[in-house]
Amino acid sequence: MSLLVIGSAAFDSIQTPSGSREKVIGGSGVYAAFAASFFTPVRLVSVVGEDWPSAYTERLRKRAIDLEGVEIRPGAKTLSWTGKYFENLNDRETLEIRLNVMGEEYSPLVPESYRDSEFVLLANGSPVSHLGLLAKLARRPRLTIADTMDFYIQNCPDSLRELLRQIDGLILNDSEARLLTGEKNTITAARRILEMGPAFVIVKKGENGAFYLSRQAIRLIPAYPSEAVVDPTGAGDSFAGALMGALAASGRSDSESIIAAMARATVVAGFNVEGFSLERMETLTEGEIESRLNAFRTMMTF
Amino acid sequence: MSLLVIGSAAFDSIQTPSGSREKVIGGSGVYAAFAASFFTPVRLVSVVGEDWPSAYTERLRKRAIDLEGVEIRPGAKTLSWTGKYFENLNDRETLEIRLNVMGEEYSPLVPESYRDSEFVLLANGSPVSHLGLLAKLARRPRLTIADTMDFYIQNCPDSLRELLRQIDGLILNDSEARLLTGEKNTITAARRILEMGPAFVIVKKGENGAFYLSRQAIRLIPAYPSEAVVDPTGAGDSFAGALMGALAASGRSDSESIIAAMARATVVAGFNVEGFSLERMETLTEGEIESRLNAFRTMMTF
Repeated sequence: MSLLVIGSAAFDSIQTPSGSREKVIGGSGVYAAFAASFFTPVRLVSVVGEDWPSAYTERLRKRAIDLEGVEIRPGAKTLSWTGKYFENLNDRETLEIRLNVMGEEYSPLVPESYRDSEFVLLANGSPVSHLGLLAKLARRPRLTIADTMDFYIQNCPDSLRELLRQIDGLILNDSEARLLTGEKNTITAARRILEMGPAFVIVKKGENGAFYLSRQAIRLIPAYPSEAVVDPTGAGDSFAGALMGALAASGRSDSESIIAAMARATVVAGFNVEGFSLERMETLTEGEIESRLNAFRTMMTF
Repeated sequence: MSLLVIGSAAFDSIQTPSGSREKVIGGSGVYAAFAASFFTPVRLVSVVGEDWPSAYTERLRKRAIDLEGVEIRPGAKTLSWTGKYFENLNDRETLEIRLNVMGEEYSPLVPESYRDSEFVLLANGSPVSHLGLLAKLARRPRLTIADTMDFYIQNCPDSLRELLRQIDGLILNDSEARLLTGEKNTITAARRILEMGPAFVIVKKGENGAFYLSRQAIRLIPAYPSEAVVDPTGAGDSFAGALMGALAASGRSDSESIIAAMARATVVAGFNVEGFSLERMETLTEGEIESRLNAFRTMMTF
């Protein structure tokens, strides 16, 4: 089944201990759609300025990503982010962010062909846009997952609360789960999020993996152990994208399928950080994903 | 098979967000021996002062721990540690440490009945004592694991280097692995430790689990997800003790057995932190361990 992804498309300028890149292709929607495309056909909803290069569009088309929902706004500029990662690669600093077109009023462009989407990923972005997208769908999708972050927790609390009532699952990282709930224990925090609406929550812990919590179950996934981290940008977005791509491919939304998809998501996110921007994912093959998934399963068997 | 444990016995005074305790029983040898005793007979080597209460001795005897190797030094006082845990429970501050008898010259007391031990745990402590113990054994044990920490890495580098050539496995936490090797990536750091002698290394990551690395394999174990952490003291020591207890019980030292033992160690360490000092382990049953181990296995299956 097709997966509908809404998220940002951006110019990223990145410094890491391994090197730097200027104005490379990035954004939560771009990373998520690209990662999902290894598993299922993807429909992307986003907005860019007229400075968005057609070469970047082509890189997404190569993965057969449907771009009918990507609005190119005349007279506007694309979101641009400049950031620097520290030696430990877990911490980063935003040196500059220019919201540009993302700071303008935005009503997501949802083509008629997207409206019956059964699997929807609301990749990291404004809960206002997320709600706007959901309102344009023909019916409630079979599975909707939203990714959020500290900025929206702090600045859009009401929209986020409303969004939490309309989605099936929330993805966020551990510090954000604590911020959203005021709980110090991450698992307690995740449990509190379930009370806000979602049937499940997936908490990402960076290089320490992720866990899934529903009212019935808890599941643990370590991160894929990597010594070759070049650029952590998009790790969370590619995780979310691969997760929902694998679920849409299976056509299932039960907890066992979600956990199996989390393993695939971990593997794809692990590949993603081995290169700047989309560089590593652009050479990635399905055979590599399967092979690493098998190794990963072995690593966790006792 | 019996397990020989060398480590400290101490008075701990502990403050955590859940409460506090004064002069309770603690020490790396105590925690490790206690945790190991759920799996196998344990022989403890340690040294205390004449202020060591017989009631504490009795609490170890209840678990059938052989205390013939525990020296009670006349005129000396027992090691005493006072510490405070912060809200996140991951960070702690040592408010006071009185080495007392542990600051004196120490030649480990190794009774004749201990000398043929095949499984040896050098619980957190001075590598000088560790080397002293190994020198008194009748032959090289089948499996020797040492636990170390930042203090010894910084203050006894030469003894530690020598120790690394005499043991089969090293246990330490992630920041200590980076400190020992100067490597920023934890897995790369673990790989460097293998070059120093041990056949394998186990890196503990606190609430984020642990991993095992040998020249042939890497295995990942998440921590048991707990919302009921009362006192993290002894988490690493009980992990190491249960690990070696389970291995000694199996009589095996191959990597598959080590990984299975790491899962048991994770479960026992998870129980240990649910109470102050030995309080939770003192009520723990083998049935509880088995039951949680099965739940843990399910949490990691995909």
